[in-house]
This record gives sequence, C-alpha cells and structure tokens, in this order.
Amino acid sequence: MSEVKNKALLAKQAAVIMNRLTTEEKNNALLRMADQLITDQQSIIEANKLDLERGRTNGTSASLLDRLALNEERIADIAQGLRLIVNLQDPVGDVLHAFERPNGLKIEQIRVPLGVIGMIYEARPNVTVDAAGLCLKTGNTVVLRGGSAALETNKRIVAVLHQALRETAIPVNALQYIEDADRASVDEMLTLNGILDVVIPRGGASLIQNVVRNATVPVIETGAGICHTFIDVSANAEMAHQIAYNAKVQRPSVCNSMETLLIHRDYDVEQTQKLLQAFQERDVELRGCPRTQQLVETITLATDQDYKTEYNDYILNVRIVDSLEEALQHISQFGTKHSECIVTESDEHAARFLQEVDAAAVYHNASTRFTDGFEFGFGAEIGISTQKLHARGPMGLPALTSSKYRISGTGQIRG
Amino acid sequence: MSEVKNKALLAKQAAVIMNRLTTEEKNNALLRMADQLITDQQSIIEANKLDLERGRTNGTSASLLDRLALNEERIADIAQGLRLIVNLQDPVGDVLHAFERPNGLKIEQIRVPLGVIGMIYEARPNVTVDAAGLCLKTGNTVVLRGGSAALETNKRIVAVLHQALRETAIPVNALQYIEDADRASVDEMLTLNGILDVVIPRGGASLIQNVVRNATVPVIETGAGICHTFIDVSANAEMAHQIAYNAKVQRPSVCNSMETLLIHRDYDVEQTQKLLQAFQERDVELRGCPRTQQLVETITLATDQDYKTEYNDYILNVRIVDSLEEALQHISQFGTKHSECIVTESDEHAARFLQEVDAAAVYHNASTRFTDGFEFGFGAEIGISTQKLHARGPMGLPALTSSKYRISGTGQIRG
Repeated sequence: MSEVKNKALLAKQAAVIMNRLTTEEKNNALLRMADQLITDQQSIIEANKLDLERGRTNGTSASLLDRLALNEERIADIAQGLRLIVNLQDPVGDVLHAFERPNGLKIEQIRVPLGVIGMIYEARPNVTVDAAGLCLKTGNTVVLRGGSAALETNKRIVAVLHQALRETAIPVNALQYIEDADRASVDEMLTLNGILDVVIPRGGASLIQNVVRNATVPVIETGAGICHTFIDVSANAEMAHQIAYNAKVQRPSVCNSMETLLIHRDYDVEQTQKLLQAFQERDVELRGCPRTQQLVETITLATDQDYKTEYNDYILNVRIVDSLEEALQHISQFGTKHSECIVTESDEHAARFLQEVDAAAVYHNASTRFTDGFEFGFGAEIGISTQKLHARGPMGLPALTSSKYRISGTGQIRG
Repeated sequence: MSEVKNKALLAKQAAVIMNRLTTEEKNNALLRMADQLITDQQSIIEANKLDLERGRTNGTSASLLDRLALNEERIADIAQGLRLIVNLQDPVGDVLHAFERPNGLKIEQIRVPLGVIGMIYEARPNVTVDAAGLCLKTGNTVVLRGGSAALETNKRIVAVLHQALRETAIPVNALQYIEDADRASVDEMLTLNGILDVVIPRGGASLIQNVVRNATVPVIETGAGICHTFIDVSANAEMAHQIAYNAKVQRPSVCNSMETLLIHRDYDVEQTQKLLQAFQERDVELRGCPRTQQLVETITLATDQDYKTEYNDYILNVRIVDSLEEALQHISQFGTKHSECIVTESDEHAARFLQEVDAAAVYHNASTRFTDGFEFGFGAEIGISTQKLHARGPMGLPALTSSKYRISGTGQIRG
C-alpha cells in the first residue's frame, strides 16, 4: 500500500476515537504539543537548517528562504498559536437545531467533526502546526502534505508533535504527514474518496488550481485574491488615499491585498495623481488604462491579462471607469470573489456595491486587508474560502465541522 | 459556443438580476408558473406521450414508464408543489451574524443565493419543476439537464414555465434547460468553473459517481443510501418488527429504505424467524450470513458485494452480529453515511450508536424512511446530501444559499 493511502487509512481509523474525546482532552493535548515544540526547539532548528541549505543550493529566493526559516522566536510564536486555539470555543457537540415533529420524533442537528481532513500547502512550516492544532481541536484527524522545500522541518515538527501526543488522549495516528515529496502523492490524496472527507489547499494559484481540477474528494478552495478598490466620485479623498494605499502596500504578498484600483472618471484628478505618485514613491509599478496613462506618464498599459493576474507584489493596475456600473462590471469580470471595496460618501452607491458585488467580503470605506480570521475576531483561521459552498471568507473552527441529525423515536414508522 | 456554455452564461447574467428581487417578486413568479402549468397541461401531456411512445419502442421497463408518465392529476400535484414553496420562508437576506470589531468595523454575515446551480437528473419530470421552483425561490438561476427519456416532456414544461416568467420579475434566462441529450453535455457542465457555482446530481449511483469523478465545479453529492437497521439484544420485538419491516417494504425504491438488517446474536430467535418470514411473504428476497442461513432455509449467502449494493428493490441482506461493536463496524465498512437505525431498549447502546455512527441521520427506535425534507418539516427538499460539506441530510431552502460578509467602515486601515 502506498504511503498516502496507508496514512490516510490510519487517520480514518483514528477519527473514530477523536469523535469521542472531550474538549478538555483535546485542549490538554494541544497544550502538550505547544510545550513539546519549545522543549525540542533545537532539533527543529537543526532540521530547518537542512532545508535552508538545500534551498540555498537550489537557488531559492531570499523571500522564500525567509518564509521557511525558523528560530526560537518563531517557534515560540507557533507554540503560542496552539495555546490560543486552546482558548477558542469547541464547536463540536453544539446543537444547531432541535425540534419535535407532530409524530413525536425528536430531531437534533448537532455539530460533528468533518472526519479526515487533507491539507496540501507550500513553504511555511508554521502551517504544519496551525493546521494540526485547528483540525485536532475540532475532533478531526488530519493528513498533512507540505511543500518539499520544508520537508526536513515538517518531518521534525511532526515527530515532536507525535512525541507530545503519546502522553495524551489524542491518538498519534490522528496526525499524519506525507513525506513522499513527489507530486504523485498529492494526486493520490485528491482521489481518496471514502477516506478523506475534504481536502483544503493552501498556497499559490497553481497549487489551488491543480487541486480543484484533479480532486474527486470535496475541496474547499482558498485564497486566490484579485481584490479591487473602487474610488467613487463622492469619495472622501483623504480616506480614499489611506484605504487604497493600505490595501496595496501594507503587505502586498497576501491574498487580501489590492491588485487593481478603479477610479470614477469624475473623481478629483489632482487627488488621483497624488495617490498614484505615492504608489510610485513606494516603488509600486503601475499599469494603467489609456485614461490613466494620460494622467501620469511612465505608466505602462494594463492588459486584460494584467487585470486577471494576482501579483502579490508591488505592482498595481489602475483603471478609470465611467460609473459605478462599470466598476461593478469590471469586478464581476476579473474578480475572484475574495474581497472588494468601495470608497464613497454615497449611501446609495455603498448599498448597491454591498448588495451586488458577489464576493466573500465586501467593504464600504475600509481596507480589504481586514479579510482575515484574526481581524474578524475568530481567533484563528484555517484559510479564506473563495468558494460559495460550506464556508465563505475567513474560516474559523466551525468551518472544520459538519453536522448530523440524531433522531429519537418510540417506534415511529412511515405510513 | 456550445448550447451548454451559452445557456450557463445566460443564467450567470440573469443571476445579477435575481440577486436584487424581493421575496414577493419571486413568490409571484412561482405562483404564475403554477398557474401556467395548469393552463397548458394538455400540451405537456401531449409532449409526454411522445416520450412514453419512444420509451415503449425502446423497451423501457413498466416501472420507469410509470415514473415518466404525466396526467392531469400529477400535473396538479406538481403545480401544488410550487405553491407550497411559495409558503416557505425565503432565507435570502437573513443576517446570520452581526458584530462590531474594536476598531469600529461593522461586520454582517448575510445569506445570499449560491448563484448558478446546475442540476443533473434522471427520468421523473416533476424534478424539472421542483428544482426550478426551489432554485428560483432562493434567488438562484438554474441550468437543468434532465434524462433523455423525458426530453420532450421537459422541453415542453420549461417552455410553459418560460411563458409564465415573461410576465414576472424573474428573467426568463434564470431558467435554462439543456436539450442536448448527449452525455458530453453533462461532462461539459461539470467543468464550467467560474460559471456554475455548484452542480447537484440526482439519480442513481452511476449518475452520481460520474458527477463526483468528473466535476471540477463544486458538487453536492446526494442520494446513495445503503441504510442499515440494527436490532439490538434488548430491542422491543414488536417495535423492531414494525421498524425493520417499514424500512424495507414501505417503499423499497428510495434511498432511505433499508438494504441490510443486522441482528444481535442473542436477540430472540423466534422473533427473528417471524420477521424474516414476514419479509418472504411480502416477496422480499433474503440474502443472509451463514448464521442467518441456519435460521431460515432457502436464504442464499450474502457476499461483501451484496453488502455494498444499494438494491432499491425487494431484496434484503440479513446478518447476525456478535455485538453492538460488530454492528458499528459493519455500518462503518458498508454504509454510505445516509441513514442508520438502532432498535434497542438500552439507553447506553442508543447513546453510543447515535454518537458513533457517522451518517447524515442516525435513528433510535424509528424507521430510516423518515430521512426526507418533508418528514423533517422543511416543506420541500432539493435532495439528501450524503457528503459532509455545506449541507448534510435533507436539504431545504437554506442549503441552496451561501453567505457573504458585508463590512462597513469609516476609513479603517490595517496597521
């Protein structure tokens, strides 16, 4: 049997035990995991050095190496993340609905774990611990498949977590890590119908698209974000400047940052020029529609391909539109249903934008950068869903649960 | 452009309009649809005759022909089904959560339509009207692809519904029917990512498996039901007899009927024999484990393949098990996570069964036949989900919605 199938089956068996655990038992295990990470941090840092050396040899970029690197401070943060999950309310067992039918049947819909969750992700080793903590807290078992760049680090982290679990009520088999770095191991996970209950991909667009295209198990699509900010004619100029600037440059590498700025044609031209200049001073490369090119020289022409690209970088498309309708049309055509913003003083335009834009999070007069489980107050997130089924937007603990109906009768039969 | 893509795009365009409609506008349209079905019933019956004739020529079975056949009474029932949907509460616009963050951001999570729903189904033409009514009531648009056996009937029904919609706020394009009877039209629907928001298959196991295997758009898996009834040692014999008999013979063709009866080895042998005899008197073919064969002659041996088969017919597997654990194990191995029942007087066994069985609906002392949107009091159902994401069990109107976050700020940016 392949490593993938073997480990997934072990996780499935462990799911039966997980389903019986109390919140206290799960929390104790998470605290033990956090402690063990600190106790064994030097061994993790040693393993991490192997990944970093291999990365340097292979010519990995400095920014990727930085995301991969662990030190005592980062491990302390990761362990602290587990402790924060302990403090979150356990959704499992919550009664969502309870009702009695005229025939006397008592029906309860209760939250239950999803079962076995497959996580496929890329470089950052903190995801290994985060995902393990969130999945185990919600009574699930988890099969992790991280990026090969972090293989030694992830193997060591999982060994440390397994060591911690040996002293807890959570079975060691509830946490599985796929060490096979071949792409075929991902493909195999995607078709484990009947074993994996869901696969959650986290990473770049190509990883996510590969999962969406090839999975026969249910998928929660996350993360791809081509987010827009629309500065309406009535926008408060200072506010518009702040929001657009924040949405682009506060952290361009993340999914809720802005990729395209839409500006109403009647918005103050000087304010537009001032804003675009601010971007240029921050070394943001601007690509503009022909009308934008007339306002600021040195802007290259934005193509449809640009409008379709999630840069995650210091690059911004700028398009001047004739109306709210044209802005809505552009967002409908090029958006990824992640986060969209209108800056306006018009209540009517704000209401239309909030109503008509089809996205996980729609903002009036605030930066799209707030689409985040922590910023929403969920305390943690497993990712940001960009699909409409099951969960949409930042996914906290309830997104890792399903439900079932428990029906108690006294011999009722159907007539 | 293909018929499928063209119609799906028209449905996507219409979704923008649907999203703006009031409940009253949608309800008025549904009432108009119901009236038009009655007004034009003769033309539907004429079209239905063409399908029936073709079916007879092709040697279609009598039971399938019966499911396909329409008459005035059945059309009246179908129209009445639409009127019942009008009476159901519209979930769209419901505020699921509303909260304010310390930074002053006001966040509302509200129910929104899913968008464009693809429905792939088989013979019965009533599904055409039901699905249209449920999807439109929830502000969705819908692309229907029914079975070729009902093509003339479905085309005529959709033409009648389009005629009705011309006088309503719902755009005609919100309801699309794929006339291309080639299997390739189904496959094309399954990969319309970015156009269809979800595909819901309704029909036999092979249709559903084809959808699950080949879809890259999100799917809600429905219907396959290998349901078990476990008669525990302490079961009330009269109750056990009634429940097991009802679960099998009240309507064997449906997904929530029983396929395998599990009996505790210490349950009263005479009661078991009496029950099995009752099944045989009702012409239920029994297939049993070796111990069952010792109790009743003329029972053939049940194989693992039998335990894996959804008969939807007058056939029943019977297996005698040593314990509750063995019953749980059997259900875990062969069940499809649909509906499972324990008949027992032991509160402890009932609690364990309800807790540990991983299924959409788990029953204590009641027939599995109750897993149904109408029996649960939902007023209607689009199907019964057997997956764990998004919706599980009978799906009423809320299962046809998603949510989005609306965030109102006063210039908040992320620090």
